[in-house]
Amino acid sequence: MPTITPTVKRILDAYESDNPGTKANLARILMHGALGGTGKMVILPVDQGFEHGPARSFAVNPPAYDPHYHFQLAVDAGLNAFAAPLGLIEAGADSFAGAIPTILKVNSANSLTVDKQAPTQALTAGVADALRLGCSAIGYTLYPGSDNAYDMIETLRELVIEAKEVGLAVVVWSYPRGGTLSKDGETALDICAYAAHIACLAGAHIVKVKLPTEALELPEAMAVYQSEGIVRETLAQRVAHIVQSCFAGRRLVVFSGGGHKGVSGLLDDARAIRDGGGNGSIIGRNTFQRPRDEALDLLRDLIDIYKKKP
Amino acid sequence: MPTITPTVKRILDAYESDNPGTKANLARILMHGALGGTGKMVILPVDQGFEHGPARSFAVNPPAYDPHYHFQLAVDAGLNAFAAPLGLIEAGADSFAGAIPTILKVNSANSLTVDKQAPTQALTAGVADALRLGCSAIGYTLYPGSDNAYDMIETLRELVIEAKEVGLAVVVWSYPRGGTLSKDGETALDICAYAAHIACLAGAHIVKVKLPTEALELPEAMAVYQSEGIVRETLAQRVAHIVQSCFAGRRLVVFSGGGHKGVSGLLDDARAIRDGGGNGSIIGRNTFQRPRDEALDLLRDLIDIYKKKP
Amino acid sequence: MPTITPTVKRILDAYESDNPGTKANLARILMHGALGGTGKMVILPVDQGFEHGPARSFAVNPPAYDPHYHFQLAVDAGLNAFAAPLGLIEAGADSFAGAIPTILKVNSANSLTVDKQAPTQALTAGVADALRLGCSAIGYTLYPGSDNAYDMIETLRELVIEAKEVGLAVVVWSYPRGGTLSKDGETALDICAYAAHIACLAGAHIVKVKLPTEALELPEAMAVYQSEGIVRETLAQRVAHIVQSCFAGRRLVVFSGGGHKGVSGLLDDARAIRDGGGNGSIIGRNTFQRPRDEALDLLRDLIDIYKKKP
Amino acid sequence: MPTITPTVKRILDAYESDNPGTKANLARILMHGALGGTGKMVILPVDQGFEHGPARSFAVNPPAYDPHYHFQLAVDAGLNAFAAPLGLIEAGADSFAGAIPTILKVNSANSLTVDKQAPTQALTAGVADALRLGCSAIGYTLYPGSDNAYDMIETLRELVIEAKEVGLAVVVWSYPRGGTLSKDGETALDICAYAAHIACLAGAHIVKVKLPTEALELPEAMAVYQSEGIVRETLAQRVAHIVQSCFAGRRLVVFSGGGHKGVSGLLDDARAIRDGGGNGSIIGRNTFQRPRDEALDLLRDLIDIYKKKP
Amino acid sequence: MPTITPTVKRILDAYESDNPGTKANLARILMHGALGGTGKMVILPVDQGFEHGPARSFAVNPPAYDPHYHFQLAVDAGLNAFAAPLGLIEAGADSFAGAIPTILKVNSANSLTVDKQAPTQALTAGVADALRLGCSAIGYTLYPGSDNAYDMIETLRELVIEAKEVGLAVVVWSYPRGGTLSKDGETALDICAYAAHIACLAGAHIVKVKLPTEALELPEAMAVYQSEGIVRETLAQRVAHIVQSCFAGRRLVVFSGGGHKGVSGLLDDARAIRDGGGNGSIIGRNTFQRPRDEALDLLRDLIDIYKKKP
Repeated sequence: MPTITPTVKRILDAYESDNPGTKANLARILMHGALGGTGKMVILPVDQGFEHGPARSFAVNPPAYDPHYHFQLAVDAGLNAFAAPLGLIEAGADSFAGAIPTILKVNSANSLTVDKQAPTQALTAGVADALRLGCSAIGYTLYPGSDNAYDMIETLRELVIEAKEVGLAVVVWSYPRGGTLSKDGETALDICAYAAHIACLAGAHIVKVKLPTEALELPEAMAVYQSEGIVRETLAQRVAHIVQSCFAGRRLVVFSGGGHKGVSGLLDDARAIRDGGGNGSIIGRNTFQRPRDEALDLLRDLIDIYKKKP
Repeated sequence: MPTITPTVKRILDAYESDNPGTKANLARILMHGALGGTGKMVILPVDQGFEHGPARSFAVNPPAYDPHYHFQLAVDAGLNAFAAPLGLIEAGADSFAGAIPTILKVNSANSLTVDKQAPTQALTAGVADALRLGCSAIGYTLYPGSDNAYDMIETLRELVIEAKEVGLAVVVWSYPRGGTLSKDGETALDICAYAAHIACLAGAHIVKVKLPTEALELPEAMAVYQSEGIVRETLAQRVAHIVQSCFAGRRLVVFSGGGHKGVSGLLDDARAIRDGGGNGSIIGRNTFQRPRDEALDLLRDLIDIYKKKP
Repeated sequence: MPTITPTVKRILDAYESDNPGTKANLARILMHGALGGTGKMVILPVDQGFEHGPARSFAVNPPAYDPHYHFQLAVDAGLNAFAAPLGLIEAGADSFAGAIPTILKVNSANSLTVDKQAPTQALTAGVADALRLGCSAIGYTLYPGSDNAYDMIETLRELVIEAKEVGLAVVVWSYPRGGTLSKDGETALDICAYAAHIACLAGAHIVKVKLPTEALELPEAMAVYQSEGIVRETLAQRVAHIVQSCFAGRRLVVFSGGGHKGVSGLLDDARAIRDGGGNGSIIGRNTFQRPRDEALDLLRDLIDIYKKKP
Repeated sequence: MPTITPTVKRILDAYESDNPGTKANLARILMHGALGGTGKMVILPVDQGFEHGPARSFAVNPPAYDPHYHFQLAVDAGLNAFAAPLGLIEAGADSFAGAIPTILKVNSANSLTVDKQAPTQALTAGVADALRLGCSAIGYTLYPGSDNAYDMIETLRELVIEAKEVGLAVVVWSYPRGGTLSKDGETALDICAYAAHIACLAGAHIVKVKLPTEALELPEAMAVYQSEGIVRETLAQRVAHIVQSCFAGRRLVVFSGGGHKGVSGLLDDARAIRDGGGNGSIIGRNTFQRPRDEALDLLRDLIDIYKKKP
Repeated sequence: MPTITPTVKRILDAYESDNPGTKANLARILMHGALGGTGKMVILPVDQGFEHGPARSFAVNPPAYDPHYHFQLAVDAGLNAFAAPLGLIEAGADSFAGAIPTILKVNSANSLTVDKQAPTQALTAGVADALRLGCSAIGYTLYPGSDNAYDMIETLRELVIEAKEVGLAVVVWSYPRGGTLSKDGETALDICAYAAHIACLAGAHIVKVKLPTEALELPEAMAVYQSEGIVRETLAQRVAHIVQSCFAGRRLVVFSGGGHKGVSGLLDDARAIRDGGGNGSIIGRNTFQRPRDEALDLLRDLIDIYKKKP
């Protein structure tokens, strides 16, 4: 195992209540791949098959129907970790044991079952599965704002307790939606910051949010953003506000790439994440929906950006 | 016990996270009967008494009121396995112990209790029952699309964990219905593929879906099927798409015969399943609602089709 | 203990998956009283106090307010078993320990709490109570057709597992009601047969249904009854159809007497049950709402009918 | 400890399924205080603070804000037992350990949270609390007729099992309300008798009901009360009917005093309870809402009435 | 450890049913900081990030984004305890181990998820977390009056049992809201007194309520307040009524500062709490939303008030 770098050590020290098992798993993710030791991460998530169905996810690049394709892509690109639901991890866990840290996504939604007001997800795996499959972390999606948010928080709480007891890390996808939230509000700065903060308060080790827009959703928050002059013109400034909302940087926060995008847009996003002090990208469809060679090129460029100091 | 054939070994290898107990039970099913060792299966399911009542199921062939009739039919026809609900398995488990692998159907609906929007099933047995009755697998029906789908997925998840721990296999009947799905949508290609994929992601070892039609249900999926030119004119092509959606063939998938049909239609279906790379048929009413001799003839013909290379 | 008769042995053999404990308890019921060894049963159930209140149940024959009255009646009449809810069994379990097999009724409804669409019952006792009170079986009421039917089936399932583990028998009162069932439908032949079949599939050892009328409720079933020419003119024919629906006679089925009736009607019913191959009567209000002497006379006549071969 | 009197022994014998622990706790209550050994009881319940708030309960007699006041009153008046919710018992359990049997009231409603149709109560304590606080019994309020009645019965069932296992007694406040019950129906004779009977069937050792009026609520019951000529003109006759409905006197039944009343009315009630064969009074507001000296006088008079033979 | 003062000993003695572990934790809070030994307390709660989001809570004083800021403020100001949700305590528990007693806030609401009628909170931590993080108490918010109040009481009950078993103290934030309560009613005197009393009855060791106004909400209560002449003109009189409602002073009760306020208003409040016999203040936003120096000054003045005898 590589020697823990001072940067990573400083990050781990902030998880001061965690046991050595959980810190070791966080270290595994932070020390792995091309960005190992830098405190930055690029993670490959593949749960779109669950969320949107197989054809919409993989038909554009048919080799991606095979679970092994994704494990191999993450390994070859030198990513920090690979995240996927139970069945997909099971289908490659043995072949790729030890090859790359894995994050077991323990809940999933699907586009056949939709509730606009009270969206939620089904629990499809748990901490015991993560242990038997050799994963470093569990991943959980939370919908702050949903009429089901309190139930989701309570489920998360049980997973958090269980994971921390057995030395796993917890990654929370904190995606505001449902209830009285407007569509634009889901990525508004105040809402993203709030969602990130809730995840931290609920005990997450790594928070994943969407890149925030300049919009503000809640009137009470808007008043404070204006009176206190919170800067939010540039994406880097907004990322910095999210980082601040994650216990002033004591918790790792990564950003999702969103829908299929052009390469230059993705690279610009990464620069802003880096400059704002974010810890990296979770990037799925923008990689596995391209031919493998293009995906590898893109991931190399992304990693290069994170390697540079802001 | 017969020597595991290379074909079956290759199939078992794809279940790379499973313990030897579960692999042995999958092997029992795959190595049993006339198709033993070919990687193809014909399974007899008898849960129509629960779903439609005794008279609608058995009056046309009264010996079928007796549970032993079905065990004996499956044995005499050289099928791979026999699947039924608790009481029916209990009524023959001892007499036929070791005679044929059994699949305990652990949930069932009935036609007295109907909810169009949020259909679900009642859990009527569990993993402990399967063990005490000597079954090789549990069978679970999932309704993707139902307003109860997430609850059903979570129940499945608990059964999957429990079954895998004690070395049982899990067969999922993935039947889309409820919610906003149209009646035609229940067998549309995109929906069947999605349902099969969800079952795989949820950890199923064997997936059972209905034979898909050429129809497409979801607008977002329709766009992709067209832009990517996914062929779906022939039933064999559609079966191949389902197989691809089952982790590119890493999971076994069998197809149900549907309602009472003519013999030639059933044999045509089997040829398409075989040619598309599917793993076989689950066929209930089309066998036990015929006189025993006719049923045995039909099953012999079906098995012969699966024995031939496409 | 009396030697098990060949008739009872044959009945017990059909419970082929049960442990010796459960078979011994079934044997206790089948070998007890005036009908011991014949394979026929008369059982006294007293849960009307719960269902209709004390005055409606006992005021017509005030000694019946005392729980001991019912134990003594069942003993003196030479019945096979006595069934009642928790408190009533508790009030006599010690005085009558060993005097007659008891069935602990574990759920009950009451006429203060009514839901037409989704009727259900409250669980008032469990398997542990049955053990500490020396009961041979638990009794559970299921309402097929109710909007609560699936929940009731799942509760039954848990009781069935628990009872079978500790060697108790399970008696299911399968009474269709609620949902879209018409009032006449509750005793229609197709519905009664379906209700009995569901109880068998759910793992019941003894099924209790109401005597069916000639009516048919479900259009799909009606078609089959007509096309297959299922005879149903006489009560004995209808009883035979219910017996057939109980795994072709592999499960015991008894019939309830219904509301207060004239003596000759009750005896006619018993003859039909006997001639149709049913296993006997559960008869409550028609006994304890008559003076004790009249009740004993009636029960003697009933037993005499069951003693005769059809 | 005083020698158990023949009267109390006869009462205890009727609890024939209970273990010696529970009988000892029933004996503690029946042998304690001025009525010890007579089979009659006066019990002080103080849960009005929970039900109506502190000022409405105690402002008229401010020393009663202090939990110790009530313990001392019950001791000084020579009552059989003191009943109160968790916090109140906790506040005096050590100071008054061994001084008087206590009944832990394990559920409570409050007047801030009202549901007319489906009233229920919150569980605020359990059997383990009763043990650690040295209580002789738990007290549970049931609302027969409420749309929540089945859930309340099931909660009671779990408490009953648990209490009986560890040798505690169970007192059930059976107060009909909710659902389709009229306000007058809550104290109608048929309803009170039904409520008392349900409590007995559910396994209660001591039943508490309100004093019934001459009214009848349910049409089916009304017919029986008339046809069978159940006398109900005097309160003593109505009490006798309740006693009969409690397994013909095999279960203890006490009556609540209701709202604040004049002294002579309370004493008349007690005479009727005694003459009808009831086992005593539970009397709260009518004692602690008077000055202590007046309350002690009243309780002495009440006890004197119960000491006299009817 | 400092010697327990007679004042604190007297307070602890009132918790007569608690084990030495819980009393030791109450003593830790009561003996810590500038008010140690006086029986008075000032506590810093920081759960506004959860309730209102990070920017609304911390942007006015950006160092407060860092969890360590609050721990340090509470230590430097000589407060009795620091209360916060899971993630925030986790982020400083090790650095400040032993430096100040902590209260783990185990449930939280957020302003993204709002239900006016049936408000509730999500459980985000539990007793096991409090133990592993070295906390002295758990904190739980209850909404008396909410349509969810009974569920919240039952959750509290489970936490109370668990906490008392392992020697932790329980602090209840009893905040009436929801149901039919008017906005003014939430702080009406009768409602605050009722809320405090419910918390005591539910087993709380320390009750936190809002400072009550002169208003009265419930008609039945209003009548009693008038007939009994309960004085309520001054804040000190109202505090005294709350103290009386907490078992006549046998339970500790502290008051929250409410929204951002001027310094002199806060100090006036503290004088009234002290003069009315209350046990102190819980004060959050009024401290950490000021610059640190101002906050320390304010807290020093507050402490000085509590040090003086009324």
